Amino acid sequence: MIVVKMGGAQGVNLPAVCADVAELVNAGKPVVFVHGGSNETNELTAQLGLTARFITTVTGFTSRYTDRKTLEIFAMATAKVNLILVEQLQKAGVNAIGISGVDGRLLCAKRNDAIKIVENGKRLVIRDDYTGRIETVNAGLLHALLSAGLTPVIQPLAISESGDALNVDADRAAAMVAGAMGAEQLILLTNVPGLLRNFPDETSLIPHIDRSAVNAALELAEGRMKKKVLGAIEALERGVGKVIFADGRVEHPLSGALAGKGTVIS
Amino acid sequence: MIVVKMGGAQGVNLPAVCADVAELVNAGKPVVFVHGGSNETNELTAQLGLTARFITTVTGFTSRYTDRKTLEIFAMATAKVNLILVEQLQKAGVNAIGISGVDGRLLCAKRNDAIKIVENGKRLVIRDDYTGRIETVNAGLLHALLSAGLTPVIQPLAISESGDALNVDADRAAAMVAGAMGAEQLILLTNVPGLLRNFPDETSLIPHIDRSAVNAALELAEGRMKKKVLGAIEALERGVGKVIFADGRVEHPLSGALAGKGTVIS
Repeated sequence: MIVVKMGGAQGVNLPAVCADVAELVNAGKPVVFVHGGSNETNELTAQLGLTARFITTVTGFTSRYTDRKTLEIFAMATAKVNLILVEQLQKAGVNAIGISGVDGRLLCAKRNDAIKIVENGKRLVIRDDYTGRIETVNAGLLHALLSAGLTPVIQPLAISESGDALNVDADRAAAMVAGAMGAEQLILLTNVPGLLRNFPDETSLIPHIDRSAVNAALELAEGRMKKKVLGAIEALERGVGKVIFADGRVEHPLSGALAGKGTVIS
Repeated sequence: MIVVKMGGAQGVNLPAVCADVAELVNAGKPVVFVHGGSNETNELTAQLGLTARFITTVTGFTSRYTDRKTLEIFAMATAKVNLILVEQLQKAGVNAIGISGVDGRLLCAKRNDAIKIVENGKRLVIRDDYTGRIETVNAGLLHALLSAGLTPVIQPLAISESGDALNVDADRAAAMVAGAMGAEQLILLTNVPGLLRNFPDETSLIPHIDRSAVNAALELAEGRMKKKVLGAIEALERGVGKVIFADGRVEHPLSGALAGKGTVIS
């Protein structure tokens, strides 16, 4: 079983990713597909005449500030991405099924009910944020869908203890799914060739990181790549054999990654 | 098995409908829930600075003109309705799962690729419409979800032969689902008390229509009610025992309908 995560960042080659997923699935290799939608969410936010707001925690992680209104925009934008992926896969002969982490309590998360952030040099606590950290994955539901010949396409929402939808980081969602499913590999496709020693210099790609050295890689990672490295650590801790960061902008992004292109952590 | 359809029209009491569905499901009665989203789609369209356009066919049926852009807006708006319903049901202890007709090829439809309409007294043919008419329902998938203890909440999209998402009428989708599932009853909850002899005079409610007289009821029906009557005919033809049009605006809308309030067609 392979878990593939396609980022929502600009430049990712959605048809090429779907074509590669279809090739794997049609060859009998089960795939669970997780996607993001940050770019679509930014676009929809702007089309609605609103401004996306990002917050940076005191520990240096950046995420979308998500009040209930933003959560609904995020849900709509990622639902559109989900639909487009399911359509593309269906056109390629894959019986895809879109599912969010709220559906069937697929991804259960703890809501971040007090986020310590830094804004303009000041420390603040955010209490109305609908984001969360996934604690459990309903792997049984995914196995049941796969057994029925379906390919799950997961929209990055989770459900809180009290039944509210939460915006969760799709990279870390993919990592938790890969861990819970006992996946051989987790492939994170994004709009860079992998982990770069000198971001954004793409020639400084790090081709391999030993799993014992992955914590050091967290220091190297910039911006959103930090969460991908965190996801990689979480997946490896949960028994996933190999994590690959690879370029989602190219032709054959997934088969390229499986052939060793990108940053392989093993 | 009961199929419940909640309309997307203004005034429908969503929390009351969900509370009633939860009561049934938690008492061991399987329910398949189908929803619309016309009002949410109109709102999102307006928030995006666009104008919804409706077309009337030469045979007198009105529907939303749905080019690809409109389809995506419809998909996003109905995804939001779907999420809110799944959240409400989860909060009430029901393990709900949102699913669209595209997912797992749940609802396969024939695309309306040439719609004859009347506009300003002129006849026109519309060829870029992403609407369709459901031909088959993947009942096996719904049975599998129900057997796993899940309550399906169906978003009214279908998939065309070529894998494109289509906007389908939710009343008729519910009718096709009820027929395919061998449902005992199909309950259509809307923002009127049932079929009215003199629309919009709510005191002119018709409490019962014999199934042999349902075609005559088509003559009485106004506006969107026409499609509900068509749905009722389709459901009865497919073996559904009873169809009820009932008021979705009140407290206990579903238990009221099951107790005989509204228009019962049997």
